[in-house]
Amino acid sequence: MDKLRYAMVGGGRESFIGGVHRKAMALDGQMEMVAGALSSSPEKAIASGRDLGLVDDRNHGCWQDLLEDELRRPASERIDFVSIVTPNHMHYPVAKAFVGAGINVVCDKPLVHTSEQARDLISAQEKSGAVFAVTYNYTGYPLVRHARHMVRTGQLGSIRKVIVEYNQGWLSSLLEGTGQKQADWRTDPARSGIAGCIGDIGSHAENLAATITGLKIESLCADLTTFVPGRKLDDDGNLLLRYTGGARGILISSQISIGCENDLRIRIYGSQGSLTWHQEEPNRLLHAPIDGPPRLFTRSCPWLCAAANKATRLPSGHPEAFFEAFANIYTGVAEVILARRERRALTELEGDFPTLLDGATGVRFIEQTVASAQSTEKWTSF
Amino acid sequence: MDKLRYAMVGGGRESFIGGVHRKAMALDGQMEMVAGALSSSPEKAIASGRDLGLVDDRNHGCWQDLLEDELRRPASERIDFVSIVTPNHMHYPVAKAFVGAGINVVCDKPLVHTSEQARDLISAQEKSGAVFAVTYNYTGYPLVRHARHMVRTGQLGSIRKVIVEYNQGWLSSLLEGTGQKQADWRTDPARSGIAGCIGDIGSHAENLAATITGLKIESLCADLTTFVPGRKLDDDGNLLLRYTGGARGILISSQISIGCENDLRIRIYGSQGSLTWHQEEPNRLLHAPIDGPPRLFTRSCPWLCAAANKATRLPSGHPEAFFEAFANIYTGVAEVILARRERRALTELEGDFPTLLDGATGVRFIEQTVASAQSTEKWTSF
Amino acid sequence: MDKLRYAMVGGGRESFIGGVHRKAMALDGQMEMVAGALSSSPEKAIASGRDLGLVDDRNHGCWQDLLEDELRRPASERIDFVSIVTPNHMHYPVAKAFVGAGINVVCDKPLVHTSEQARDLISAQEKSGAVFAVTYNYTGYPLVRHARHMVRTGQLGSIRKVIVEYNQGWLSSLLEGTGQKQADWRTDPARSGIAGCIGDIGSHAENLAATITGLKIESLCADLTTFVPGRKLDDDGNLLLRYTGGARGILISSQISIGCENDLRIRIYGSQGSLTWHQEEPNRLLHAPIDGPPRLFTRSCPWLCAAANKATRLPSGHPEAFFEAFANIYTGVAEVILARRERRALTELEGDFPTLLDGATGVRFIEQTVASAQSTEKWTSF
Amino acid sequence: MDKLRYAMVGGGRESFIGGVHRKAMALDGQMEMVAGALSSSPEKAIASGRDLGLVDDRNHGCWQDLLEDELRRPASERIDFVSIVTPNHMHYPVAKAFVGAGINVVCDKPLVHTSEQARDLISAQEKSGAVFAVTYNYTGYPLVRHARHMVRTGQLGSIRKVIVEYNQGWLSSLLEGTGQKQADWRTDPARSGIAGCIGDIGSHAENLAATITGLKIESLCADLTTFVPGRKLDDDGNLLLRYTGGARGILISSQISIGCENDLRIRIYGSQGSLTWHQEEPNRLLHAPIDGPPRLFTRSCPWLCAAANKATRLPSGHPEAFFEAFANIYTGVAEVILARRERRALTELEGDFPTLLDGATGVRFIEQTVASAQSTEKWTSF
Repeated sequence: MDKLRYAMVGGGRESFIGGVHRKAMALDGQMEMVAGALSSSPEKAIASGRDLGLVDDRNHGCWQDLLEDELRRPASERIDFVSIVTPNHMHYPVAKAFVGAGINVVCDKPLVHTSEQARDLISAQEKSGAVFAVTYNYTGYPLVRHARHMVRTGQLGSIRKVIVEYNQGWLSSLLEGTGQKQADWRTDPARSGIAGCIGDIGSHAENLAATITGLKIESLCADLTTFVPGRKLDDDGNLLLRYTGGARGILISSQISIGCENDLRIRIYGSQGSLTWHQEEPNRLLHAPIDGPPRLFTRSCPWLCAAANKATRLPSGHPEAFFEAFANIYTGVAEVILARRERRALTELEGDFPTLLDGATGVRFIEQTVASAQSTEKWTSF
Repeated sequence: MDKLRYAMVGGGRESFIGGVHRKAMALDGQMEMVAGALSSSPEKAIASGRDLGLVDDRNHGCWQDLLEDELRRPASERIDFVSIVTPNHMHYPVAKAFVGAGINVVCDKPLVHTSEQARDLISAQEKSGAVFAVTYNYTGYPLVRHARHMVRTGQLGSIRKVIVEYNQGWLSSLLEGTGQKQADWRTDPARSGIAGCIGDIGSHAENLAATITGLKIESLCADLTTFVPGRKLDDDGNLLLRYTGGARGILISSQISIGCENDLRIRIYGSQGSLTWHQEEPNRLLHAPIDGPPRLFTRSCPWLCAAANKATRLPSGHPEAFFEAFANIYTGVAEVILARRERRALTELEGDFPTLLDGATGVRFIEQTVASAQSTEKWTSF
Repeated sequence: MDKLRYAMVGGGRESFIGGVHRKAMALDGQMEMVAGALSSSPEKAIASGRDLGLVDDRNHGCWQDLLEDELRRPASERIDFVSIVTPNHMHYPVAKAFVGAGINVVCDKPLVHTSEQARDLISAQEKSGAVFAVTYNYTGYPLVRHARHMVRTGQLGSIRKVIVEYNQGWLSSLLEGTGQKQADWRTDPARSGIAGCIGDIGSHAENLAATITGLKIESLCADLTTFVPGRKLDDDGNLLLRYTGGARGILISSQISIGCENDLRIRIYGSQGSLTWHQEEPNRLLHAPIDGPPRLFTRSCPWLCAAANKATRLPSGHPEAFFEAFANIYTGVAEVILARRERRALTELEGDFPTLLDGATGVRFIEQTVASAQSTEKWTSF
Repeated sequence: MDKLRYAMVGGGRESFIGGVHRKAMALDGQMEMVAGALSSSPEKAIASGRDLGLVDDRNHGCWQDLLEDELRRPASERIDFVSIVTPNHMHYPVAKAFVGAGINVVCDKPLVHTSEQARDLISAQEKSGAVFAVTYNYTGYPLVRHARHMVRTGQLGSIRKVIVEYNQGWLSSLLEGTGQKQADWRTDPARSGIAGCIGDIGSHAENLAATITGLKIESLCADLTTFVPGRKLDDDGNLLLRYTGGARGILISSQISIGCENDLRIRIYGSQGSLTWHQEEPNRLLHAPIDGPPRLFTRSCPWLCAAANKATRLPSGHPEAFFEAFANIYTGVAEVILARRERRALTELEGDFPTLLDGATGVRFIEQTVASAQSTEKWTSF
């Protein structure tokens, strides 16, 4: 099989997430980076591309050059997709240009800064028909997929309550004041957008709950706080949620919760049972039915749904983790690209990844959370 | 040493909590039940007293008779305190009569139905000078006391955030429809008050957070829900809290969370570290300092404060649990009674129990939570 | 109901285990200490009895006086049983005298120093017919009883393997050199017997495995070590076990395992499933069936056997612990005494406690372990 | 940087471990498979190579052809190393041929069937000077490396006791009777060697303990059992160990322990503290010092040694797992190959992988375990 060819925008030296995407794509040996514009600084972009073995004529100083060059190339050479891993503020122009040109896009989250931009991307995508995925990577975990299966097939009865949390502690002091690159851009409104913590990680929590349950937020009530003096954006945000149909939610997110590393977790309560999952122990899913003792599902155990099994690479007890979940998002994208290439329909399990619509919902979530935080009204409609 | 003599009001046959109080008081061999009015039904009261070995002339059909009889007896025979373990609606009249008569009171929670009643009890207690304790039993756990010590001595820095939860699942269906006694009165507004879940267990969560942190709620925003059709009171309640001084809180309580048994837990985040404690594993307290790996404190380990050590009966690894915590509340009450008898001052560690003021705060919490739940304003002042 | 009356031998000031037994007996309000000889030092015995409220004419300076006095009293005043909580070397003479005199005995473990002594006690008990229990207290935990039920009813298939461990760290340095009373006698061959760690706690592990599985040791292979210089007895002991019928076992015990508090745990593997239980989290039992995901049983959950339910006092999630398990042993003894008094047969669930035969097996286990440790043969017959 | 080129022997269609090795090597984008002889069946070998994109002239039907072809090629084309992932019985001839020809080797474990073969490989390697690594992959986990660091720098004091376990349940019935490929060869003496469970996974446990502690086994006492009727090799093995210097060990391994997936875990007790690590939660390491509460180290936390930090790819809380640990072994091999190519010395942290000597120790362990199991002597010298 030929490997899929991709270009990367962003993700050069000093980037954290670029390397994660690349390793995730490398894992299964099915994708190859052939081009890139790896930094907003042309010098750094070129140097980063050399580090990574890009040939000179596909190693660009800016994303515009990359796009132009790709469009010039024959289909046989052209990239199959672009992976956009820049700071948030660059997602919109880059994604719009590529998707507008008909090139398949994988874009990091949060998608863009405003719902208007999101709608604009949706229009562009509808016109060009390109594939567009948003890397809400936590949805790639096999047991998240099994949780989704259990909820969607009614095994919890009707969903009553969701508690979703994303707790971190790394911004409990003014780390951005030290020049640390990750802290720097994530706390800067110009690059990160109108929200800090709630955009950076709260949006993952929102998406995780939506992915598993399928519930739509009807209204929300938010309290955003900036605890660390000198910080420009919120570093803690907590919400009450009301879902269409009557379910209730609590969304907790924080970057000042000392002792928490990457503590994304979710609990889902229905009329017939509950589920508990924790990203830091991703190979386990606890199911408590109303009529029996709690049961522990583990990744690759013989009692999982097909979507969970498809998303796993190792036997049970041989732990998989973050990279594999990330890779699963890309696998879904690859399946669509290959099916199109082969002019065949997707099978039921193929193409399992977060879409532009999920990304747009995430942007709306951030906007309405910030609006609610500034409102004296209890409930802000979604 | 002579044992302390007590009477019990409520707690007869079919009661759950009466037996818990009695066992807690029996554990250390320092207290003896000598009188009682153990049920609102005179027949059941008398029968229950006989079950428990009360002599006939101190086994009463109603609490008024009990009180009258006690006041008639010489001090050498009279009870040292009364333990009130009736359903909520009886707390007020019984407590008022006993405390008004100068008899020491231990009363279950929530204290009373209204803040007005609470103020009335406070007046009565100020006049008579009787001891008055409220059995927020979870504050009796040794590691809760160590958590309080760590917060109060600044080991977490300034407190930024509290997440306190009390999740149960036992009311996830209409159990009161089956005649189950516990469900029956707890979901009946006439006996339980204006709140269901939030009064029954949310108030424990409120008190636990207040006991450990000393923080005062400034305003709150509540969402109360009744999920089970046919139920008369809330069975799920979630709040955003703002504390005086700027700390934030989330309080989650539920009786429809299937898979949760008695899942009271608290996380406290300060500028220098965090604490995590879970009632179902009460012998452990996790402390994450900002500048080192998380550390696990266990009950009776050599690194606890004096108040925690005083509240323990066994070496580490020999687990203690619910009864012992409950007993510790009574121990604190006994210390005050004994010190008064011996006309000596309390030592620093004596008399460690929740007071009438704590009980009054709990009543206010329930009232303002219900008010907030009915309001369209985001924040309801406390 | 009249309370059962008991006397205690040993358990005075500075004793650890005496107070544990007394609190356990007090918990349910059904037993009353009316006499005692609480120390081998007459002065300390008398002082201890006064501390605990014994009346002078039943507060004795030595156990011989206690026994003589009891035998002199009319049945209506006489104790229902004696609780022997001395250091090990006194178990034999005291137990023999009381059981020989027809007084019911509850004796701490390990029972005696030699199998010959054990046989002698068995003869004495057969003659007098007195009740005799040995406080292997860990068998009193409700989930141990459910584990026993599951094994005995075949839910694990045929048992293949048992891993039982009892790890402690408190003797990792020469604590007995500091005069600490518990360390002092437990490491002294004259009072503790031929074994240290393996007698003190290894025997609990042996009994726990035997109680749950019913398996008989056929042969064993032991490695005993004294790690701490200056210590007179083993402080670490590990065994391979072969059970009659082909099952295999590993028994690990240690008092030099730093970080372990009272880490008694057992895993049982059968042809159809496995069980895992840990004394420090005693309210949970994990069952892994061969044909489904692991299931978590909790104390008081609706899926336990009658013997487990009978041994519990609180709803699930309200943790019970060490004292309650201890109390359950005494409850079983009380049931036999009461049934005899009432001249009725025991019900199926009554009288559930470790017997003299269990105690004798434990003595044999210690003897053969020490023999094996000194042998160059691989297997020592049991 | 040019990628390292490798060939694979074994690991074709239906193989489990071949794909694991390939993904591990792919993860960091530094290695490329350019040749192979992927099965003992020439047809399957060729088909498998095509699946994986090997060009025809480097896709061989047998390993002899592969070797011959490589030796014919100029250095600029030749593989940098061969990865041998066949069933055990093929390790020896293949490894000997390649290492004899001066080609660097990475070979799966257990290394070979006999100590004689191991010595032969060592001779061959000493002659040719080729790099030779054995994929005891569990030593690649960052927290295993930190555990090693803590022991080796004396943070636990002198090591007294090691408990190492490797429990699995997948062979609790006669799976090899169903034709399952993994079960088939692993239970076949012709391909697996003289041992089943103890060779397949017990040897990992042995190596893990040795890697962390550096302790040498002086003598051992083994009990091997075949529980499943019809099985040809042991499926359960338990050992007492005596280490040079006086430390004691227990090694438990099993493939009939239902409920255990890949339950490799180790506890190490020294005179100053202990460590606990569990492969199924590999991102955590518990350290209990003698003079403070237990502390939890997590991967990528700021308190780890350089070797652990070097072996990690993600920030703390973003879990890493099995593939990354495997990849770390290959990284160490790559460092040596690159340093040789660049004619420079290794830095202190480079070249961190299990060697031929570790592999030979593992073979000796299997031999002596089987010898002990057949002996009536208690201790078999190592």
